Amino acid sequence: MQDRPLSLPVIFHRVERMFAHKRVISAHSTGETITDWGEVCRRARGLAEVLDRLGVPADARVGTFAWNSRRHVELYLAVPCTGRVLHTINHRLFGDQIRYIVNDAADDILFVDRSILATVWPLANGFPTVRYIVVMDDGDQTPLPDDPRVLDYEQLLAQASPRTAPFTVPDENRAAALCYTSGTTGNPKGVLYSHRSVVLHALLLLTVDAFGLGERDVVMPIVPMFHVNAWGLPYAAMLCGADLVLPGPAMRPQSLAAQMARHRVTFSGAVATVWRSLLPQLDKHDLSSLRQIISGGGAVDEALSEAYRQRLGLALTNAWGMTETSPVVTVSRVATVHDNLTREQQRQLIATPGPAIPLTELRIVDEDGSELPWDGSTPGELQAAGATIASGYFGARPAPEAFTDDGWLRTGDVATIDQYGYVRIVDRTKDLVKSGGEWISTVELEAIMTDPRVAEAAIIGIEDPHWGERPLAYVVSQPDQHPTAEDIRRHLGKHVAAWWIPEKVVFLDEIPKTATGKFAKQTLRARYREQAANPPPPQPEQDPR
Amino acid sequence: MQDRPLSLPVIFHRVERMFAHKRVISAHSTGETITDWGEVCRRARGLAEVLDRLGVPADARVGTFAWNSRRHVELYLAVPCTGRVLHTINHRLFGDQIRYIVNDAADDILFVDRSILATVWPLANGFPTVRYIVVMDDGDQTPLPDDPRVLDYEQLLAQASPRTAPFTVPDENRAAALCYTSGTTGNPKGVLYSHRSVVLHALLLLTVDAFGLGERDVVMPIVPMFHVNAWGLPYAAMLCGADLVLPGPAMRPQSLAAQMARHRVTFSGAVATVWRSLLPQLDKHDLSSLRQIISGGGAVDEALSEAYRQRLGLALTNAWGMTETSPVVTVSRVATVHDNLTREQQRQLIATPGPAIPLTELRIVDEDGSELPWDGSTPGELQAAGATIASGYFGARPAPEAFTDDGWLRTGDVATIDQYGYVRIVDRTKDLVKSGGEWISTVELEAIMTDPRVAEAAIIGIEDPHWGERPLAYVVSQPDQHPTAEDIRRHLGKHVAAWWIPEKVVFLDEIPKTATGKFAKQTLRARYREQAANPPPPQPEQDPR
Repeated sequence: MQDRPLSLPVIFHRVERMFAHKRVISAHSTGETITDWGEVCRRARGLAEVLDRLGVPADARVGTFAWNSRRHVELYLAVPCTGRVLHTINHRLFGDQIRYIVNDAADDILFVDRSILATVWPLANGFPTVRYIVVMDDGDQTPLPDDPRVLDYEQLLAQASPRTAPFTVPDENRAAALCYTSGTTGNPKGVLYSHRSVVLHALLLLTVDAFGLGERDVVMPIVPMFHVNAWGLPYAAMLCGADLVLPGPAMRPQSLAAQMARHRVTFSGAVATVWRSLLPQLDKHDLSSLRQIISGGGAVDEALSEAYRQRLGLALTNAWGMTETSPVVTVSRVATVHDNLTREQQRQLIATPGPAIPLTELRIVDEDGSELPWDGSTPGELQAAGATIASGYFGARPAPEAFTDDGWLRTGDVATIDQYGYVRIVDRTKDLVKSGGEWISTVELEAIMTDPRVAEAAIIGIEDPHWGERPLAYVVSQPDQHPTAEDIRRHLGKHVAAWWIPEKVVFLDEIPKTATGKFAKQTLRARYREQAANPPPPQPEQDPR
Repeated sequence: MQDRPLSLPVIFHRVERMFAHKRVISAHSTGETITDWGEVCRRARGLAEVLDRLGVPADARVGTFAWNSRRHVELYLAVPCTGRVLHTINHRLFGDQIRYIVNDAADDILFVDRSILATVWPLANGFPTVRYIVVMDDGDQTPLPDDPRVLDYEQLLAQASPRTAPFTVPDENRAAALCYTSGTTGNPKGVLYSHRSVVLHALLLLTVDAFGLGERDVVMPIVPMFHVNAWGLPYAAMLCGADLVLPGPAMRPQSLAAQMARHRVTFSGAVATVWRSLLPQLDKHDLSSLRQIISGGGAVDEALSEAYRQRLGLALTNAWGMTETSPVVTVSRVATVHDNLTREQQRQLIATPGPAIPLTELRIVDEDGSELPWDGSTPGELQAAGATIASGYFGARPAPEAFTDDGWLRTGDVATIDQYGYVRIVDRTKDLVKSGGEWISTVELEAIMTDPRVAEAAIIGIEDPHWGERPLAYVVSQPDQHPTAEDIRRHLGKHVAAWWIPEKVVFLDEIPKTATGKFAKQTLRARYREQAANPPPPQPEQDPR
């Protein structure tokens, strides 16, 4: 067979040649740009020349701080198709984390939406490897710094002579994209996606039992393009020639729903928190064009799922994955074996992760690493293997806790798998909280809280009707110190992003410990659940005995 | 990313683990066996041990002469999953061709359906490399030869201790399957499929704009499993967990339609000749379960396509490919840009090859090899490139006529491509006739015909309402010789398969030649078309002038 690499030029040349007429719709601060894949590809060819002209090295990391926008898509194409590495960065992280990530990746150049510049520019002097910051004007009014590092995206493109030669990336194992995860111990770690894994993942999303994306679809990724390539949706849309609808910074529920209705979106993906925020919009917009709506980044709760079924006639479908898995590993669906379930049971079924898509293998193991049966009831640590699953972290950073000796990814989730391969997540081995689809490190929060008036602090994740989970802080004060919950929160605000800060802070005399002296978080969680289920009766003023 | 190969054990372990309960239905001479993928996988594990026990070398070619049957599927799994090469052979070829093919492949062992044994056994002494002939008893009564080379499939399996360890094929570029094509100059040539190409091809068939095969499908390959892996349908069915329905030797239209109706088949693929033969059955069976019917191996004619649309409400969809292309390269479909066409125009559209599926690139070129525009009207030689396209033939046989200097496959078809990538075949550069989806070599027929009473013979392909094309022979007799058409046919019958023999033999005084002395076949074809369109009036006995 021909030695043709699975690399992104295959996707670029396909969408450029066959789907130039299909639409790309991109919202910005003051409206919406409607263009087509032909124009996006022409601009990506221009951008390729810009990268060369600016002397961006052949294998450099190119950082992006951008919403889901047409320009971000142009970067998705031009950066990896020229052999460089697309490094998407979550601008919602705390400044210290952003600084760590840009420096760990040693980004050569950053592309920043003007509406995000106020977050990035104050950090710029802490990015020694960054030579240029290219501002993408999305209609926002943030003033542009008068600094030779700052360039304008559209000016650069206007001066470019678009590359005419075909793109070639002969080595399919070359790095195409980089995304950092904080769902791990210690500092955020970068996951490097190869061209091969990106192309295979895009192809997998076109299979009928995964997302089944095709030319007739109008795909709207609400999941951010800085988050694991927006689940691969932009690349999949290009590969099949779908229309692509991008919300840009217009992330208010009203804007999202209006855009979805206006362009007759057929497929969308977002975390449960976003789907929840869209609920009040369902009656105000015609969303009848939707054929599949995917909720990822955590469990789909019953009430939400049922609300969608009742009001759209379309239940939320759960998909499971993580930054280390490209990300899609499972997509739920009603299989032939479930035909005899009630409609209610089927709705519940597709709110669970479901079975692995092709080319990905799952297993559950006990604490000794022995494989456990797929009986739908035995829980074990979920592990994953496959051509779209990470084998390590950027910079050859050792992470023995993340991978088994035989090379499988330890997902950190505890799951059951039934005889048909359907996964249910029942617990988590990692001490993390997942809020709105993103990770909060309890260990990091705990370290920060112990200074200066706090003796000990333990964080647990508690169920939250909007965010899925939120952190709850148990705090033991230093002797003679009496910090308030607000004091604790104010202190944290100097060190972590606002959305990390626990709403609930509970003071204890001591934190229960395990036999080895660690925080007994299982005890804390059990105690919390019990109290939440049985709130204490009002206390009488005196002991009646 | 993990270095996980795209090799067939990925498919085997997936279907074994997740889809063990899904059905495999296989007709034989006396009825039908209904079993499941779990049983097929158990038996394939047994067969793997049989191959080891019989000492079949680790990279041997394993030949099969078999219908579409469960046992053939077991061979599809056990042979490549143990690293050996599955060599499927067309038993409808002439004996000399079969002998050539078995010896060229140097098959170590043959697996033969009992109903095909009468074709294979008389040739067996001409297969010096073949150590065993394993008979698969399909209910046929052909006597079993008393010969130590002859073994029984079920007896071997009954004695086997099924392999328990997982299958592993670490090198995805290792050969998995071999199929010979006669659509080439000279002797048949073998196309070797790698594990990578087989797995990618199966995955491609699951994408919604190709065949869109999924777990809910009931797939019935009528296209033979000896013909380019039955278009990859068995492997695709395993990968997605579809039910598989196999007609075995029960290839009469009545049997096919009854089986299709009985098992609520949703997807089937066959050549136009088979679809034509099924027409009279459409009113006698409930075929309402069909959601897509693919016609490959040649053009879909208008009348046939329209007949299906009228009677099933489902037009035939054309797909294009060849042995060298795994085979599926294009699958037609009505895209969004065609939404404003009439229903009649849409039906005509899907009767043409349509656009390339992902990972495959097409181009059309002129005689100098310069690329031609995709304007829907300029014809050029169709060339193909991609990870599922051959780069050469088995045994490193040089075939400069088949590949360009830059490694693209020259398909031998002349096509136009429109701006959306839709292919239409308008002519053929290769001097071949395609009858019922299979190639007939005009050059070979011409060579045979010139002996002994024939001076010259030229074959052209003519349109045929049932077979798509049939050969027509123009013959110039030797001086003083007066062979009849029947003499010519009888002579050919000693050298080629019956279905190669032209029904029409036309005697001429001379065959028109080109300036360089070659047969002017274009002139012959034009003359034939003109005569067919304007049959001569009855000749008056005398010239009236």
